[in-house]
Amino acid sequence: MEFIYTRKINYYETDRMGVVHHSNYIRFLEESRSYWMEKVGLPMALVEERGYTIPTIEVNCKYKYHVTCGDEITIEPKITEYNGVKMTVTYKVLDKKTGNTVIEAYTKHCFTNRDLKPVNIKKCDDLIYDKFEKLYLD
Amino acid sequence: MEFIYTRKINYYETDRMGVVHHSNYIRFLEESRSYWMEKVGLPMALVEERGYTIPTIEVNCKYKYHVTCGDEITIEPKITEYNGVKMTVTYKVLDKKTGNTVIEAYTKHCFTNRDLKPVNIKKCDDLIYDKFEKLYLD
Amino acid sequence: MEFIYTRKINYYETDRMGVVHHSNYIRFLEESRSYWMEKVGLPMALVEERGYTIPTIEVNCKYKYHVTCGDEITIEPKITEYNGVKMTVTYKVLDKKTGNTVIEAYTKHCFTNRDLKPVNIKKCDDLIYDKFEKLYLD
Amino acid sequence: MEFIYTRKINYYETDRMGVVHHSNYIRFLEESRSYWMEKVGLPMALVEERGYTIPTIEVNCKYKYHVTCGDEITIEPKITEYNGVKMTVTYKVLDKKTGNTVIEAYTKHCFTNRDLKPVNIKKCDDLIYDKFEKLYLD
Repeated sequence: MEFIYTRKINYYETDRMGVVHHSNYIRFLEESRSYWMEKVGLPMALVEERGYTIPTIEVNCKYKYHVTCGDEITIEPKITEYNGVKMTVTYKVLDKKTGNTVIEAYTKHCFTNRDLKPVNIKKCDDLIYDKFEKLYLD
Repeated sequence: MEFIYTRKINYYETDRMGVVHHSNYIRFLEESRSYWMEKVGLPMALVEERGYTIPTIEVNCKYKYHVTCGDEITIEPKITEYNGVKMTVTYKVLDKKTGNTVIEAYTKHCFTNRDLKPVNIKKCDDLIYDKFEKLYLD
Repeated sequence: MEFIYTRKINYYETDRMGVVHHSNYIRFLEESRSYWMEKVGLPMALVEERGYTIPTIEVNCKYKYHVTCGDEITIEPKITEYNGVKMTVTYKVLDKKTGNTVIEAYTKHCFTNRDLKPVNIKKCDDLIYDKFEKLYLD
Repeated sequence: MEFIYTRKINYYETDRMGVVHHSNYIRFLEESRSYWMEKVGLPMALVEERGYTIPTIEVNCKYKYHVTCGDEITIEPKITEYNGVKMTVTYKVLDKKTGNTVIEAYTKHCFTNRDLKPVNIKKCDDLIYDKFEKLYLD
């Protein structure tokens, strides 16, 4: 299933350099994951209700092209590694108008219980495990 | 007791206009409250540990003078209304170098329990009530 | 012309209290202004291209109801004062699901040139003046 | 020259999970670079005044340990690659109280002129080149 998240840049997300501050892209990636999960029936609120959370354990982001407020970017997340303990999400992020690659990025995640202790979600929660497996295999 | 919080502006707190984005001052005010509470022995972590929190119920901020990254501001918070149910904090915010007033601001707060239900802190928690009363009367 | 901006809350906009951090609403209000201006053919990028900017000179926000990530709010901005030198925008902000008022807010603005010196936009730029006048009178 | 930046976590930097939102560490790293540069007589304002800027072209951050508001972290930046065109900064980030590693991170940067075009700072600006070379060789 193809999922592409379109996102317009806000004024407060730019900095003195006139373009998006680099830290904000990390937030846009999170947004794309949230909307994606929501679309497949697994909003973060439901994950938390079931007793789990999905912290980010690594972020890598290469900045390739500047965008600024009013510009639109598209983010296409893809699960590229997954085993119930860890998960890697890789992102295709383009400037909507020019098609230029804005950033190249991946994020790594684990699954934890409410006390932020890592768990194997395969052994803890079938619904959550299956949803991500389906996205991974798609 | 005089308390003045000095704060340097970060690059990521500026926007395309070249100066601090107006939303960030709301955060600087919160910082000054936190450091102030910490200094009198009532850090927010302790308030939360005791079962309470102190949400902001109103913010008013008039922007008078621009500062940007590298500049330093001083914030002097003062409790100007307090009765255990509600509290108003008024702030003197100056550019350290020029002495210019950067913003004129006040914030209003209530006290709530963990479920975010308002409480009269005078009836619930003597330590918290007394700390703020002392700051108010000073 | 009716304009209502719908906005979903992101995870990174919540704080330890479990709900949206109060400073973020100031940003949501800015978003609603930007999208509104864009819709009537006056995106901020165009304003800046013409040599002007529209700083916020006052913010007032009363917090009435908590929302959190996954929730949606609607923001309906309205220009309630306007004369080419200053402008007041008042906002109706509702929780989409319950219809509860989330915040009551207004922001005040002036018009400046590139050096952030205030100008009377009525004397400087007909296009910008007229666009806001139309929104004001509507 | 040893440089260690100490930073207390603010309430608004936490999220619903109760700990610092992962995007904020990217900002803390930037702070440590700014303070470091300032300490050696090269504040970002001076770099910009001389016609240059130093964008971030890559960020890598591994999250190891959670901290929350009231906690203090220490950040020790070190230039680990440098040739006037590109620069890598590696960071040691510890929880002040426990000594635990909070994140493992590096950032990569280039030098650009005002139009954000990459330059070899060795050929453009001796003062800037030398300051970073000194930090690199130290």
